Parts: sequence; C-alpha cells; structure tokens
Amino acid sequence: MNAVKNYIQENKQRFLDELVELLKMPSISADSSFKNDVLKTAETVKLSLEKAGCEHVEICKTKGYPIVYGEKILNKNLPTILVYGHYDVQPPDPLDLWNSPPFEPIIKKTETHPEGAIFARGASDDKGQVFMHIKAMEFMTSTNLLPCNVKFMIEGEEEVGSKNLEAFVKENRERLKNDVILISDTGMISKDTPSITTGIRGLSYVEVEVTGPNRDLHSGLYGGAVANPINILSKMIASLHDENNQITIPGFYDNVEELSKEERTEMAKAPFSLKAYQEALDIESVYGEKGYNTNERNSIRPTLDVNGIWGGYIGEGAKTVIPSKAFAKISMRLVPNQDWEEITKLFKSHFESIAPKGVRVKVKPHHGGNGYVTPLNSLGYQAASKAYSETFGKVPIPQRSGGSIPIVALFEKELKSKTILMGFGLDSDAIHSPNEHFGVWNYLKGIETIPYFYKYFTELHK
Amino acid sequence: MNAVKNYIQENKQRFLDELVELLKMPSISADSSFKNDVLKTAETVKLSLEKAGCEHVEICKTKGYPIVYGEKILNKNLPTILVYGHYDVQPPDPLDLWNSPPFEPIIKKTETHPEGAIFARGASDDKGQVFMHIKAMEFMTSTNLLPCNVKFMIEGEEEVGSKNLEAFVKENRERLKNDVILISDTGMISKDTPSITTGIRGLSYVEVEVTGPNRDLHSGLYGGAVANPINILSKMIASLHDENNQITIPGFYDNVEELSKEERTEMAKAPFSLKAYQEALDIESVYGEKGYNTNERNSIRPTLDVNGIWGGYIGEGAKTVIPSKAFAKISMRLVPNQDWEEITKLFKSHFESIAPKGVRVKVKPHHGGNGYVTPLNSLGYQAASKAYSETFGKVPIPQRSGGSIPIVALFEKELKSKTILMGFGLDSDAIHSPNEHFGVWNYLKGIETIPYFYKYFTELHK
Repeated sequence: MNAVKNYIQENKQRFLDELVELLKMPSISADSSFKNDVLKTAETVKLSLEKAGCEHVEICKTKGYPIVYGEKILNKNLPTILVYGHYDVQPPDPLDLWNSPPFEPIIKKTETHPEGAIFARGASDDKGQVFMHIKAMEFMTSTNLLPCNVKFMIEGEEEVGSKNLEAFVKENRERLKNDVILISDTGMISKDTPSITTGIRGLSYVEVEVTGPNRDLHSGLYGGAVANPINILSKMIASLHDENNQITIPGFYDNVEELSKEERTEMAKAPFSLKAYQEALDIESVYGEKGYNTNERNSIRPTLDVNGIWGGYIGEGAKTVIPSKAFAKISMRLVPNQDWEEITKLFKSHFESIAPKGVRVKVKPHHGGNGYVTPLNSLGYQAASKAYSETFGKVPIPQRSGGSIPIVALFEKELKSKTILMGFGLDSDAIHSPNEHFGVWNYLKGIETIPYFYKYFTELHK
Repeated sequence: MNAVKNYIQENKQRFLDELVELLKMPSISADSSFKNDVLKTAETVKLSLEKAGCEHVEICKTKGYPIVYGEKILNKNLPTILVYGHYDVQPPDPLDLWNSPPFEPIIKKTETHPEGAIFARGASDDKGQVFMHIKAMEFMTSTNLLPCNVKFMIEGEEEVGSKNLEAFVKENRERLKNDVILISDTGMISKDTPSITTGIRGLSYVEVEVTGPNRDLHSGLYGGAVANPINILSKMIASLHDENNQITIPGFYDNVEELSKEERTEMAKAPFSLKAYQEALDIESVYGEKGYNTNERNSIRPTLDVNGIWGGYIGEGAKTVIPSKAFAKISMRLVPNQDWEEITKLFKSHFESIAPKGVRVKVKPHHGGNGYVTPLNSLGYQAASKAYSETFGKVPIPQRSGGSIPIVALFEKELKSKTILMGFGLDSDAIHSPNEHFGVWNYLKGIETIPYFYKYFTELHK
C-alpha cells in the first residue's frame, strides 16, 4: 500500500489548503453570536464528505447544531466503521495571547514541527483530525481501496457537551449500526512514540451562583457586616479539597476504580520527564492529590477544577463594592465507574449544604458524561495497533488520557460497539488554549495510517 | 435667618436643574475612556463656583485629574472654612441593574422620599452633596450673609484614591490654611434622626494576581496535576478569615483600638432594627466577626472584603480550561491607629507567604488612607451640632461610619485642622450601587443647614 504515500505526496498542498479554508470558519458553539458560522461550517463538512465519495450525505437537524452524516456501504456482509468527530471549536479567548488571529490559519515551523504546523483554533481539536479521516476516505474511494463500509457522523456541539447527540443516536440506531467506532480527538505521546488512548475520563460541568444582599453594596458601609458573596464563594471552593488535595464531597470516591500496583507500574513505564513538564509550563512544582504521581493525577484520578470565576468590579482601577452575586464554572473529571449524573447530584447537594446563612446558592448542571476504557484485546484495538506499527515502524503504547469524550460511553450503551481513540495530536498542540496548532507531519501521518486501520480491521473481522 | 428658607423656596427648581446638568456628565475617574468627561466636569464645577461668588477660581493641574479651587476672603481676622468634595464618580456597572440610565438623571418619588429623589450616578456621592455647599455659598454671597472666609477644594480622584491630592495639599499649605474643614460625603441616620459622622475607617486597597502555568491549559489533560490559579486564589482568600471571621494576617489587629464597654453601650443606643436591615438587603442573616454586633462590625472593626474576582472562562456556555492567571481586588477597612501603609505591607508579605509552590503571586497596592475620629468637644463639631439642631429641630447623634475618606487624616497631618463630616445622604441612597439617588428633601435641607454652620462656627470662634 505505497499507494497512500504517493497519493499524499501528490495532494499534500491541496489537503493543507482545504483544511485551512475549514479553519477560517469560527464555529464556536459556546457563543450564540457565532451561530451562522457554525451552520456554514456544517455545510462545508457536508461538501467535503460528498467530495470524498460518501453517499446519502445529509445535514441532520437537532434541537441544537446539526449533525453531518454520510456513508459508503459497499456490501452488507463487510464490516462497518463509524467515524465520529466534531466541527465545532472552543472559544478562542483570551485573544490577546494569540500570536496570530485564531481564525486566520498560518503554517509556521516550530521546534517540534520543523515541517510546519497549522496555527488556528480547531487545528488539532478537532477539525484537523476530522479532516484526516475525510482525506483518507477520499484516497480509498478514489483508488478503489476502500475495504469495508463506512459511516461518518460529525457533530457541532462537542465543545458544549453534545447535548443533542444522545437523542440523535437513539433515533438512528439502525442507520448508525457499526462494528467499531473510530474517533481522532485525542493525542499521542510524541512523534517518535506513537500511542493509542485506551481510557478517557468522564466529566461533570456545573455553574454555581452565590447571592448575598439583593444589590451591590458599598464596602465601607456594609463591609464586615454582611456575607460577601465573593469571600463566601472562595471559602466554599476552597473547602472542596482537603489538605491532601482530595475532594471533600461525601461519596465522591465511592465508585472510583483503584488501579492495582501492577497496573500503576505498567503506567509508569511511559516516557515522562517531570523536569521537562514543569519547564514547559514554567512552574516550579506540580500540584495535586497526595499519593499519586503526575501521570496518575491526570488520567486515573478524578479531579475538580474551577474553569472560570467572576464577581464584583473587574474593570480598570478600584471600586469598593460588595457585589450582590458571585459566580463560578466548575468541572469535575471522573474515572470509570463514577456516574456523572450521580456525581453532579452529589456536588449539588454538598455545595448547597455548605452555604452559610446569609447567602443563597444555585447550582446549575451544565453537561457531562462517563469515562470509558477500551479493551486491549478488542479487534479494533488490535487493528489500530497494527496500523500504527505499519506507518510509524513501532508498536504504539496504550495510554490513559485525562480528557473527556463523553459520547464514547453513550455510544457503547446505545450502539453496543467499542470505540478506538486514534488520536494524532500532541500535548503541545495547545488545544483549548491560545495558539492551538496541529503539525503538518501529524496531519499527513494520520491520513496515511487510517487506511491501514480499515485494511486490518476488515481482515481481522473475517 | 428665614432668608435661607425663602431663598431656597424661590430657587428650588433652578437648584435641581443645575444639579441635573452636572449629573449628566459621566466623570468616572476609574475608567480612562471617560477622561474628557472628567475634565469637562471640572470646568463645570469651576463655573458654578464663580457663579456662587467665589474668587480666584482655578483649575489646578495635578499629575492626574485637576483640583478645582476657589475662595472668598472677607477679612484675615475672620475664621476660614475649607470645603472639600469631589466631582468624580464611581463606575456605574452593573448597568443592567439600573432602572434608568446612570447619566440621565430623573426625579422619582420613593417611599423614603415622597418629595422625590434624583436618580443618577453621583447624585449623593458626591456631586449632590458638593452642590449643596455651592448653592449655600451662592445664597450667602448674594444676600451678604457670608460671615467668614471660605475656600473650596473640589477634586476629581476621590473614587480612585485621591492619588495626587497629598502633593497638592503639601504644595499649597498656605493657600489652603483654614480653621476647620467641612466635608459632605457621608450620610445621616434618617430624615427624622439627624446625625454627624465622627469617625471613619481607613482603607487599604490591593490587587492580587496568581499565576500558575504559563498558558491556559485543557482541564482534562492537566486537571488535577497542576495548581489551578482559581482554586489556589480561592483557597488563599478563604484562609484570610478564621472560623470566627477574624482576619488571619499576622499583626493585623496589633494597633486596633478596642472600645470600652461604656463606648459600646453608648453606640448601641443608636436606633437600629436588625430585622429591617436584613429585610432591606433580602438576607436571612447578617454575617461577620464573632463577638461584635452589626453596627460595630461596620464601624469600629476592621474588615477584609473581596471587591472583584476574575479568572478563566466567564462567557456564555462552558469551557474546560485551567487558566494561566486569576485576579482579585481586595480592600481592607481599617480603624483608628491602624496605619494603612503598614497594613498594606502586612497583607503583601502574608499573601505572598501563603502561596503554595506551583504558583507565583503578585500583590499590587492600589491606594489607601488612615481612619479618623472627630472630637465632640471641638468648635467645629459644636457648630455643626447647633446648625442641625436649628434646621432639624433635634440635636444630631454623633456616629461612627464604616466608610473611608482617606484624605481626612491627611488634612489633619498637613493642615493641622479638624474635619467636620456633615453628610446629608442616607444609607438607602445606594451609593456605589445601581440606582444611586439623593433625596430632594435632603439636598435642600443641606443647603439650608450649611449657612447656620458658617454662622455658629464664626460666633464660637470669637
């Protein structure tokens, strides 16, 4: 199958140009002022699927942003791969930290990417990785090398919790039926050390509101005499971790799977330099739950982080105000066996219970999903491992990730099939951060590797 | 002196119209985008002083916003009153909580003000109260009833800490020389219960910045493994109060004057309804330092309040980010004998010392000032007490306030004279809050009372 290498060589510039066009579209699902851009992006994805040889391509309405579906069914006896991805992106702020505008993609060389990397919001998460699949598909259909059936389901609400995907999946169980689900929305250890994500964390995302007095007050006239919502919110947030940085919500750890010594030893074999990690982030020290190392803290352990906080006067200069309200966005990363809806309930009742008299507290659940683990002995994992071995010349390392793709657990429940997380990004891609980028090498390596997965999965399936 | 009543009756509408014009000017000193408006307001104040009969009126340049000075010297042997006030105002946000635009003044009746109240930012703090003095001056000069010398010093940076006033006062000691300083920038207990503020709290206002990783991070990939600046900031803020709501900064209480039982008993005689207080603020309970009641907590005790907090994603929807930085604006109200510069140093070194490894902390002192107590046996206090008795028909109650007018301590130090805080506002004026207003009755009562102060102070001074 040198065919794929040749095809990439011939079409490389076009593959980049097409991705750049897609990245110009600010499909920010979290901000309703970008609604038209999100909808236009769905149209563009539809056209690209048609161009890649998909049939029955359709922009499927949901209560929120649409899901783009397309398929190519060769023969009912052949296995079927369902590719999932998303065309929406995270908000780009803080804008002033971007070195180039987030929706004006440019290709620049970096130390990690001497071949160049595409800098733009969504470059790696997830437009670039979705596009690898579309271009791999184009190669297979145009060269008659597609060995099995394919279905594509590209949604527009992943960054805001895939609120309407569950209903769509339930209503389209037959249409979405498949033998394995393929998602590229994660990363690998490095360009030299291919890896496949075998576990992801669940998520519970909530927003809290603390209300004190019914109006903003002068801090001189009322200071010290009434509960200040910001002081109280800070106190409540602080109390959510104990002195060992364990989460204090009663029942939070009840279902957490404790890994065996052997499993932890196995994990510790992955290459990791604490010094390099700290230097890359410019921190003097890591910080986290006592008794676990950094790689464990961000993969097999649940966490609680404040993602945003605001209240009072945040403009230039000084204002001596006690605000009426203070707010925070808080997310918890969960591990397998923790049920996100249960955890959300535990958070809500605990947070309400710790509010002192003199304030009122509202907890609004945002979204969430459960964690997931891919069995290493599944056909899908084995096919993926062989595909990476073929193109990287190395057997990939199975690795647990700290991120969340809440819909993976949903897919297993509703579609009864396993998901393979074939990510080609790197930790240094700065997804969700300013200056997000995706290596040109990684993009092309993805396009090269994907057809091998199709080949081996079809062969193993026989 | 029925003259003043008659003068007010004849000129009431014009007094209101002129104040309304002044209130239309958004002289927000904290926000540099309003620079031209602040400067235009100084011009307007200058014209109004001239119209009131002041001489040598001058817009005095400083390194920041100018100070408007004017005087009327009758005779060097007569006593001299220095009137201080400010023409700048607090930022009006949150704008959406105003029932009418903050810089489009309207007069509306309220329960407390059946005669109407002027709703606008600055109506009570301090344009309305400054204007009482200017209109009282106009009355005295136009009727030849001015009994002594007067100097006006109206500044434009009170709401941002009067940063350039100290230099001005030091450079103009001779010009500002006086026998008493008169300030109307406080309130009284109620329209039925006149009171004079005899104590004000000091202030130390700081801004803190907590930096964790050098860029915003994905909370899935890094969550639980690095110090999250928002979680850390919350924890640090929470730790600034102990379980009795006492401030934990070492040395903070060292110089705090403890009032005697007798003094506390005297204070407790002021009319106060906890039920009405809580109902007005719509809170179930007050909250504060153990061992002190509400009136003590907000007057004779020092406090620490967060006036603003921000960090991470605060837009619509959800973003799973660990921000690089989190910020807070924190102010401490101080009581007599606490030195604000010393307290600022104590805060800074304590706050830096409690930062865990993995974050860096910056503390930026904003501004501050010391507290002040007016002696009840001073000539100024006695003159004020007689003036209120004349126009209210009741002896005013001396009262400690929780607010800060940092320049009062400065005046005593540099000009060697006592300050009388003759405020005509009410707690319900909502200063620094949305829907700030000033009662028409209070405005006119102020204009009526001030000339009596001039009369009695001149008489007592002989």
